[in-house]
Amino acid sequence: MTFTTTQEIPVKPSKQIEEVSKWWLKSVAASRESQSLAEVRDINENWQSLTAEPGSVDYIEVDAGGVQAMWAIPKECFGDRVLLCVHGGGFFSGSMYTHRKLYGHFAKDVGCRALIIHYRRSPEHVHPAQVNDVVTAYRWLLGQGIQAGHIAIVGDSAGGGLAVTSTLLIRDKGLPMPAAVMPFSAWFDMEVTGESVESNKGEDLLLNREWLIEMAQMRLGKEGNPKDRYANPFYDDLKGLPPVYLQVGGDELLLDDSITLAKRAKAAGIDVRLDIFPGMQHTFQMAVGRAPEANDAIARYVNWIKPKLGLK
Amino acid sequence: MTFTTTQEIPVKPSKQIEEVSKWWLKSVAASRESQSLAEVRDINENWQSLTAEPGSVDYIEVDAGGVQAMWAIPKECFGDRVLLCVHGGGFFSGSMYTHRKLYGHFAKDVGCRALIIHYRRSPEHVHPAQVNDVVTAYRWLLGQGIQAGHIAIVGDSAGGGLAVTSTLLIRDKGLPMPAAVMPFSAWFDMEVTGESVESNKGEDLLLNREWLIEMAQMRLGKEGNPKDRYANPFYDDLKGLPPVYLQVGGDELLLDDSITLAKRAKAAGIDVRLDIFPGMQHTFQMAVGRAPEANDAIARYVNWIKPKLGLK
Repeated sequence: MTFTTTQEIPVKPSKQIEEVSKWWLKSVAASRESQSLAEVRDINENWQSLTAEPGSVDYIEVDAGGVQAMWAIPKECFGDRVLLCVHGGGFFSGSMYTHRKLYGHFAKDVGCRALIIHYRRSPEHVHPAQVNDVVTAYRWLLGQGIQAGHIAIVGDSAGGGLAVTSTLLIRDKGLPMPAAVMPFSAWFDMEVTGESVESNKGEDLLLNREWLIEMAQMRLGKEGNPKDRYANPFYDDLKGLPPVYLQVGGDELLLDDSITLAKRAKAAGIDVRLDIFPGMQHTFQMAVGRAPEANDAIARYVNWIKPKLGLK
Repeated sequence: MTFTTTQEIPVKPSKQIEEVSKWWLKSVAASRESQSLAEVRDINENWQSLTAEPGSVDYIEVDAGGVQAMWAIPKECFGDRVLLCVHGGGFFSGSMYTHRKLYGHFAKDVGCRALIIHYRRSPEHVHPAQVNDVVTAYRWLLGQGIQAGHIAIVGDSAGGGLAVTSTLLIRDKGLPMPAAVMPFSAWFDMEVTGESVESNKGEDLLLNREWLIEMAQMRLGKEGNPKDRYANPFYDDLKGLPPVYLQVGGDELLLDDSITLAKRAKAAGIDVRLDIFPGMQHTFQMAVGRAPEANDAIARYVNWIKPKLGLK
């Protein structure tokens, strides 16, 4: 297991990456004042304002086998290679629109297409609706003639959890496996047991324990089981997963989620890499195109995934 | 001339439309602190955060005869009707990205395509680069087989000025005329002589006289002439223009620009309509999809333009 932190010597955060911290502070304050779920969701729609436009990428909405989705198609790309992208937002918010630019960058830099899915959200739809939607979109890609080995599944936050659990479901359904999984700032643990939930309290400007528990309950529903392996990969042996590359910010409450997943994947014989970015906030990669820290993180992913998709 | 204000009785502004005021205050403060033109432009890129995603609209970048542009293509639309859209931003900022969602709404509600052009900006490119780019894109549309009478030119702020002056240039080049022109919060007067520049000082949260003069100089260049008819339509007789529908906020420094244009167009025998929206800020229509005032303004444009494009 490659298990690295990115900086041996602390470096002053860029002015641009501080916008991520400002965004979370502003978003938390606005959400507290909001009157309804619709309002919180609308606030979260501006998460995308952190990300610069990649440019030279087209965006085409599509019905991916019943799952609403959006193609991000760079002007120059290998159309037969696909990133299946699963956005974050605590399962109840975020959308293919909030992550359009982020995954547009990702696709453009890899030189492939991205299918950004707009999965059904909680609380209107509880688990396993979300993980089923990822697998449905994956099946749809295969049905479009895309080879499994030319697909990588990538996701952030709640979508990072879904990237892993959907791959477990793909495995268990006997479908051909994707080339790789790339979860960043991923949320895996529906029981919220990580030590970093305490140790990074206050450092993480977005999350707190109570809110994680509330979002888990919304996601699982009243009858839901936080130990369901397709909701919580810590209750799976992880065997048979393709290569996994995790990224996480050092200041995140969810830091231990990535560390634990990496350790368990290693124990299961999976090719796993984890990069911890000191001082970074939840999904700091959203600042790609603006902040050097985010550009660096995406570039690491790009360099890692290209050969796995057969790209130079 | 229809010359209306939209509200006889003052109505409390919606919470959502107040986001426009907040945006301008924040943007002006951030621009003052910024170190470079690139930084100001980047701040202005988030102008788009005011606008909700229209949804069910695809965005495809295109080379429109040498002019960078983006198609906004609603899933359901008449592809042979086109809004040629000219964004604002003082000629030096704004982009096809800042106005993607705004003109996406516009196109979706009309039921046609929008071509959002990314014209060359000042100070790197001075007048007449911008107006030439609009006409080039218009010619390109004609070359694509779109009938002139099925095209409307729409623009906001600096782009509102360009919508009118490009139509004058289309007229003078002997090209077939578009169906209509829709300038909102338009800036026409490169000499900055309107009374509202004084009377709305402080009410307009974005603009001031000094900045308008500075932007005019950037746009015209050192040798530029503020009385050039293709930079300033107040020096043209406006004869032969197609129907014009202007919208402007009552609190704008540029209020008189629209009033004067409307009066001069009326004198020239043009079918002209002007709606003044009391208490509204510069380009408040950017809040479409969120604020009822912006939705109302766009709906007025939609109802006005559809029959002119032969749509029901």
